[in-house]
This record gives sequence, structure tokens and C-alpha cells, in this order.
Amino acid sequence: MIVFHITSPETGIACELQQKIDQLTKPKGSLGALETVAMQIGLIQQTLSPVLQQPVNIIFAADHGIADENVSKSPKEVTRQMISNFLNGGAGVCFLARQHGFRLIVVDAGVDYDFPPDLRIIHRKIRKGTRNFLHGPAMRASEMELAMQYGADIVTECHEGGSNIISFGEMGIANTAASSMWMTCLADMPLAACVGAGSGLDGEGVRHKQEILQAALDKYKGDRSVLDVMRYFGGYEMVMAVGGMLRAAELKMTILVDGFIMTNCVLAASKLYPEVLPYCIYGHCAGEAGHKKLLEALHATPLLHLGLRLGEGTGAICAYPVVSSAVRMINEMHSFSKASVTKYF
Amino acid sequence: MIVFHITSPETGIACELQQKIDQLTKPKGSLGALETVAMQIGLIQQTLSPVLQQPVNIIFAADHGIADENVSKSPKEVTRQMISNFLNGGAGVCFLARQHGFRLIVVDAGVDYDFPPDLRIIHRKIRKGTRNFLHGPAMRASEMELAMQYGADIVTECHEGGSNIISFGEMGIANTAASSMWMTCLADMPLAACVGAGSGLDGEGVRHKQEILQAALDKYKGDRSVLDVMRYFGGYEMVMAVGGMLRAAELKMTILVDGFIMTNCVLAASKLYPEVLPYCIYGHCAGEAGHKKLLEALHATPLLHLGLRLGEGTGAICAYPVVSSAVRMINEMHSFSKASVTKYF
Repeated sequence: MIVFHITSPETGIACELQQKIDQLTKPKGSLGALETVAMQIGLIQQTLSPVLQQPVNIIFAADHGIADENVSKSPKEVTRQMISNFLNGGAGVCFLARQHGFRLIVVDAGVDYDFPPDLRIIHRKIRKGTRNFLHGPAMRASEMELAMQYGADIVTECHEGGSNIISFGEMGIANTAASSMWMTCLADMPLAACVGAGSGLDGEGVRHKQEILQAALDKYKGDRSVLDVMRYFGGYEMVMAVGGMLRAAELKMTILVDGFIMTNCVLAASKLYPEVLPYCIYGHCAGEAGHKKLLEALHATPLLHLGLRLGEGTGAICAYPVVSSAVRMINEMHSFSKASVTKYF
Repeated sequence: MIVFHITSPETGIACELQQKIDQLTKPKGSLGALETVAMQIGLIQQTLSPVLQQPVNIIFAADHGIADENVSKSPKEVTRQMISNFLNGGAGVCFLARQHGFRLIVVDAGVDYDFPPDLRIIHRKIRKGTRNFLHGPAMRASEMELAMQYGADIVTECHEGGSNIISFGEMGIANTAASSMWMTCLADMPLAACVGAGSGLDGEGVRHKQEILQAALDKYKGDRSVLDVMRYFGGYEMVMAVGGMLRAAELKMTILVDGFIMTNCVLAASKLYPEVLPYCIYGHCAGEAGHKKLLEALHATPLLHLGLRLGEGTGAICAYPVVSSAVRMINEMHSFSKASVTKYF
């Protein structure tokens, strides 16, 4: 399995960062989350004057065998249809990317469809969808390894192109089901606390989804190690995202975390390499049941609570202006002495 | 007293707006607050294709007689010093305004300082600070009327210049104290629930502030009508903001509401004209104690919770990108039929 060399940011600069923030013309702490984010990015970049460069959102798309069990409101064909929508600029993530200057990269990680080879996506199809984990492992170890490597390599290219802040999104009908399995196993929470409505199941639909997932969990005889859980229940798009996150942390990029599925990828990544966590900024607490509890388990404070539950990276990109504000704050605000304002604390 | 002619938006278009939003390529309701805001602005502008034009943030600045009672952590001179900081681009509100394309207008509503007449602010000084309301009314009825008129007139000019979305900020040492008095009287809540740390009082400081305010409340023998409470305890900057908000609603502009003090201005404005409320989008739930309860009393759902407690309009402007996202969503996202995506709900 691919190895990452991730180190937590050095904290030697923290005191100087805090002093700079406290000298800005405002009551101490009165810019709340902007101050927290400025500190975090200052640490990641090891500077008192951080910058954000070429934000990128990578959408990994794949299909899931478990979709055959009617665990999603949406038909499977929506995965491939949405790829066209991403490319044509019509999806939710597209207007947000335009608004906030994100480059959008779409990756076929394992969609059950033959795309034309000249389509403007990154072709990294591992297989036409995972296997149905109700009956056995979703993927093979060799497939998982390849997916991790692909995800990491794409992030390396973004970094070489000049990006230092990155978010990950996903498209994959039934991937909230796969994510719930990761969460119950890796965060050690009861399945019921991890299952939600996905793209819009009603109460009966959620009950059915939970029954299917419980049956899959009962049949699972693996060792519950991180890699085994990832392989048995995961999606190719989720594993690629884990690889991408770990590489981003290795390259000391800031990771903007999207909703329920991507937070489960952070969970898995952090079980492999806890040092990934200081690089993560949580964009949004999603409407999907379980996300709030998962964020709490990660001791994560999301920036936004807008009731989004769309995925694609929308929750991460929506939070970008707040991150950008934090960087502007520490670079552009005047200090008490420069502004000749009486320091009042 | 100045009269406003405010009517709630017609709701005849609501059904068509909801249909348009529900045809966009996303699970129904999955863009959460963006959908709510798109509906609200569609109603305000009576169109399926709303636009945001020339956002403006008006900062009203004034001093408060009650500052003599040591109810603020900050010395009174900070009010006038911050005016220079606003003009020099060094304050918190300045980098946010630059980031999100807001024009910044600074109004001397009643600062206790003689500014040079050629200073690039709008000179509308009612008086060099209000009177100390521990000993009597903060302002005269004629002063309040003038302040309402001035605030309204400045908004009219913004509207004539092409703006259709406006936020209001304030600068005035001790104005959380004045706001707490409005809140306890106008929202009918116990004073203790309305008093907070302002720019950074410690526990002892908050206790002292509350004692002073309780003493002022005990001495107050007015009729508790909205106008009497506004006059007795208010600040000139707060009254100007009320006038500005009412005029903005009259002109069918979208009002982006800032933190604790500006939400108290919405409270007062809505007690005079309840029809102002459908024009208000609440930007942020502030760190100041009392703001959350006040928002609840107004049945308001703020867009952001970032722990800001700076005022100046920062909480409102921080929320602007979310409002802008909502408008982009309804204008730029493709429908299921246009995108050839199977409608899955």
C-alpha cells in the first residue's frame, strides 16, 4: 500500500501569529472563526502572511453495487448524467466554483458507463462500479491501492500547477450508504446514528436502507481494520478522495472538507495518518443525519451550517469566502499602532 | 414623525419560484439556505431571475452618554479613532467590503468630536453624543425625528445610485448598552437576558453594566411605546439605522442584517412597521449574549454563526457570498430537462 510522509505543522510560530492577530484593530477574539482559520492557515503555511493560491475542487465519481438494493432515492444512471452536467456548467458545484474562482476537475473513478475517451474528464475508471457489499467485499485490495494512488497523483498535479488549497467532492448514487458503513465501523457508532435520507428517502426508505446495511454488517467477517473496512464497503471515489487528502496533507496544502461523505473520507484518512487533521478546515455541517455526530467525533468545528446536502464539494466551496476573509484579515487589517487607535484590552 | 409606506412583497409569484427551484438538478431542498434566500429575494424583486446590484454598507457612528458610567471596555475616543481607520481601509469591515465589492459609506451621526468638514464622511452630526440615560432621556424627540430622516435620505441616495441590497453597521462605544435597553423594553425580555460583554467586559464588568442599566430602567417613567423607548435609550446611529431600514424596505431593497445592535434596530423598525421584516436577511448570529434570543424573538434564521462580535456591518457582509450564491443558483443552475438528468423525486 502507498505510504505517505505527513507531519503536523510546526507550532513554533503560533505565538507570533496570535500576537499579530491580537494587534489588529478589533476587540480581542471578536472576529471569531476568522481568527481561528487565520491561525490554522498561518501554521500550515508557516508564515504570518498566508496566501491562498489557485483553489481546486476535485469531483470523484463512481457507482456502487449496493445501489442494486434500492438504498437510494435516485436511479444509478444519475451518476453518469451528472458528469455531463458538471462539464456543461449546470450543476450546483459549477456556479459555486465560478463564483469563488475554483478550478473544477472531474474524475471518473468507477462510473458504470463508457465515456468517450476524449471527454474532458480525468479517466481513472477502476471498474464499472463496486460490487454489492451485501454479498461480499465491494472492491479488491489491488483496486483500492490503485484508487489511493490515482487520487494522490491527481493532487500532486494540482500542487505542481500552483494550488495550495483544495477541496474534494463526490458523485455516486448510494455513496451515503457506503459512508454510513465506514462511519459505524471506524467511528465506532451504532449504525442507526450513521444512516440518513441521502438524496431524499422518506422514513420507510431510510428504514429499508438501514435494514440492508445492518444485514451487510452482520455478514461482514473482516478484522475491522481501517483498510479492510475501506475496501469492504467503500466506493472507488471515496478511496481516491482518501488518497487525495493524504497527499494534500503531505504537500502541506489546506484541505477544505465538504459534507457527510467527504468527512467520512477524512475519518478514514485520519485513522491511517492522524497528522492529516491539522490540514483540514471543515466547510459545512450538512443536512444528512450523522454528519453532526461525525464532526463531533473528529472534534471538528464546521464553518457553515446552511442545511446543504448535495455533495459535489458544494459545502466546501461555500465556505471558501470565509477562509479567504481570514487570510485577508491577517494581511490587510491595520494594527492599533498603525491606525492610531487606543488599544482597549 | 416621518411616515413610511411599506408593503410586504406580493406572494403570487411564490409558486412559480418554488417550481423553478425544484426543477434544478439537485435533490429537492438539498441546497438548504440557498433555496430559502433565492425564494425571499425572488419575492422581494418579484422575478424568477433576481439580481444583486451595487451592495452598500452604511456605517453610522455616534457616541453615547451612558459611556460615562463605564459600561464598556473601550474608551469613548475609540469611536472617532475608528472613523479614520474606516477611511484608511484598515478596519475589519474594510477588507470584507473590498472582498465582496461593497461600497462603504461612513456617517457621523453624533460623534463627540469635531471632524474637519472636508473629511470623506457624510456629516449628519445630530449632537456630540447622546445624553446619559441614567439621568434622563438620551435624546429629544426633534433630534430623533431628524436622525430618522437623515438615515432614510442616505438610503434613498444609495437606491438612486443603483443599489438594491444594503447592510448597516455601527460604531459607537457603549451602544451594546443602549441596544440592551431597546431589547428588554421592545422584545419584553428580562434585562439579564439582554446584557453581554460588548467589546470584551469580564464577568465583573458585565455585572456593573447590568446594575447601571437596571438603575436606568428603574428610573424610566415613560410609556414604553416604541418611539419613547427609542428616544430615551437610543443612540443617534441606531435611530438613523432604523430610518435607513424603513426606507430600504419602502424602496423594496434587500436588507442584510448585521449583529446585535443592528438586529435591535430591526426590532424597533418592525414594531413601527411589521412589513419591514420580509425584506430582512439575517447575516450572522453574533457572539454577544442576547443576540440569539433576539433572533429567536424575531423568528429569524441567521445565515452564519462565526462567533463574530465586531459590528461595523462585518456579520452582514460576511454573509453576502451566501446571498450571492442563492441568486446564482436560481439563475445559473440547469434544470433536469435542460441537463438531461433523470428527475429523481
